[in-house]
Amino acid sequence: MTHPETNVETFRWGDGKLEMIDQRLLPADFCYVACTSAAETAEAIRKMVVRGAPAIGVAAAFGVALEALRCKSQSQEEFSSSLHSGIALLAASRPTAVNLFWALERMQQLWHEQRGQANAIIAERLQEEALAIYREDIRINREIGRLGAELLPQNGRILTHCNAGALATAGYGTALGVIRAAVNSGKNISVIAGETRPFLQGARLTAWELQRDNIPITLITDNMAGFLMKRGEIDGVIVGADRVTANGDVVNKIGTYILAVLAKQHHLPFYIACPISTLDPATATGNEVQIEERSPAEVTGFGNSQWAPAGIKVRNPAFDITPAGLVSALITEKGIVEKPDREKIAALLCA
Amino acid sequence: MTHPETNVETFRWGDGKLEMIDQRLLPADFCYVACTSAAETAEAIRKMVVRGAPAIGVAAAFGVALEALRCKSQSQEEFSSSLHSGIALLAASRPTAVNLFWALERMQQLWHEQRGQANAIIAERLQEEALAIYREDIRINREIGRLGAELLPQNGRILTHCNAGALATAGYGTALGVIRAAVNSGKNISVIAGETRPFLQGARLTAWELQRDNIPITLITDNMAGFLMKRGEIDGVIVGADRVTANGDVVNKIGTYILAVLAKQHHLPFYIACPISTLDPATATGNEVQIEERSPAEVTGFGNSQWAPAGIKVRNPAFDITPAGLVSALITEKGIVEKPDREKIAALLCA
Repeated sequence: MTHPETNVETFRWGDGKLEMIDQRLLPADFCYVACTSAAETAEAIRKMVVRGAPAIGVAAAFGVALEALRCKSQSQEEFSSSLHSGIALLAASRPTAVNLFWALERMQQLWHEQRGQANAIIAERLQEEALAIYREDIRINREIGRLGAELLPQNGRILTHCNAGALATAGYGTALGVIRAAVNSGKNISVIAGETRPFLQGARLTAWELQRDNIPITLITDNMAGFLMKRGEIDGVIVGADRVTANGDVVNKIGTYILAVLAKQHHLPFYIACPISTLDPATATGNEVQIEERSPAEVTGFGNSQWAPAGIKVRNPAFDITPAGLVSALITEKGIVEKPDREKIAALLCA
Repeated sequence: MTHPETNVETFRWGDGKLEMIDQRLLPADFCYVACTSAAETAEAIRKMVVRGAPAIGVAAAFGVALEALRCKSQSQEEFSSSLHSGIALLAASRPTAVNLFWALERMQQLWHEQRGQANAIIAERLQEEALAIYREDIRINREIGRLGAELLPQNGRILTHCNAGALATAGYGTALGVIRAAVNSGKNISVIAGETRPFLQGARLTAWELQRDNIPITLITDNMAGFLMKRGEIDGVIVGADRVTANGDVVNKIGTYILAVLAKQHHLPFYIACPISTLDPATATGNEVQIEERSPAEVTGFGNSQWAPAGIKVRNPAFDITPAGLVSALITEKGIVEKPDREKIAALLCA
């Protein structure tokens, strides 16, 4: 499971276990966490060992396969019950990334098709399906990269937010896949990464990942983006998405919406790079999406370091909603949709 | 030196020493740092023991007085040379806050008027002048508060950035002075405070100061402001200023410009509260102001906690520039200027 053109291997699979880079510890510690059941995988997703919408989908698929492998010597009834419980745990791990539900649905579909087969056969098929989802995600990211790279200028300073890279996917990345493809095609691209409070995915993950692949990167705090845009030091913005609703609204890491407003104000392109599996045609607009509120301790400090006064009231929405009208183009493996709206999203899904 | 209507005493003066709350350690530790010379005061400003444009001006004035008291038994020539050096050190401590230069100019003016007097007399006059600057600043803040409170709604959730409070002034505060005055006049105001990366003045200082005075406060990361505005959970923005140029452009803590753009996008009022001494009519526009770039270590972590990969490139501008066109009103002790521009700023200065 190697990834050409990147040195970042988010997942390792084999011997009945799933290994994932512990993204909570990067960049100070670079180590893998092993999961051998759906419950452990769900816990890893919940605790953000792994994060990023496509990566959560891949992890969940592997989680189902792990549960099947773990329980294959049980009776058919017990096996079925274990798988059901495992899938329920995985579905409850994070609420926003639609890829999670998409991957679980696909695994469940395959399971139902195999009903009546021996447990071992079902487990084998589920393992194959999880690996297929994994490999497809890398292929999809490479295609998103190839298509999106055309949109970037020959020389450009591109702002990104959070981490939509190899670490957020099976490999290569969505937004950072576009950057990688542009760099590999000979374009002179440097990245400006917002640190992405409160979990600091930009400062920790994007910085680590791009540094590891020798792509020029400059780190800023999230509130510096406006200053740099006004000075003419940013040429465009590209980010990933956790969910794109039927009308093209984008649910993504908190702070994305601000960057979209700023890009409009400074006449800069604002791109979303994501796989088709991130599209959620069943949800009409971003306003209907439940926004996860996380622990106050993430805002009052970071890790073991707490700097706000004890007892302070906090808001901690993990995502925000960028209206479709602020998106210059949606970059997917099935093509680029400029100025996305309900009709164009529907057409893309039928393509 | 007590401040009615606030429990926060930023400065203490007496016995040839200046005591200031060490704002680097708040809220974990609440203690005072003592300075007995201009050099120590300049170092305290440089290291951000004290920060906030009006507070820097007050500290610098006290620094000149300290130097005069410390050196009054020297020969007139030595005394003169010590004072000159001390003033030069203070002037070089922080580049952006125009109040610093305003306060030093005022102290120097008084010194020149006293030329020929005995050192002890000069030292006494300088001490009186520093105390006058200190007391005036509190009076000014209370007047800014009184005037600005009228602008706030009877019931409102007001976003602020950084710390423009008692801690940023001699006492009471500019932006937080307006909040205090509105609360004291019976208005039902709650504050939303942006944490203000990288130095976290919002999370550490504004949160501590308002909690201490029982004013309702909710802490957010800077990138959450857009989400809350879009949800209709913010009714207006009020911040301080480090410098207002002749045309009404506002130089203030990094991140201010983003809030001004967002306020415009959401049709919310965006207020600047500052004393007349923050106005810099000698500088035509914000574009001519040198923006201080601070240490990369502030962005790659906080305090002893470092989370970005070693060797990462960083930008760290401490301030940004908000064009006058985005300012709904400038609140000063001499009156409120709606939609400030060159003519209105000039008229205010002549009033």
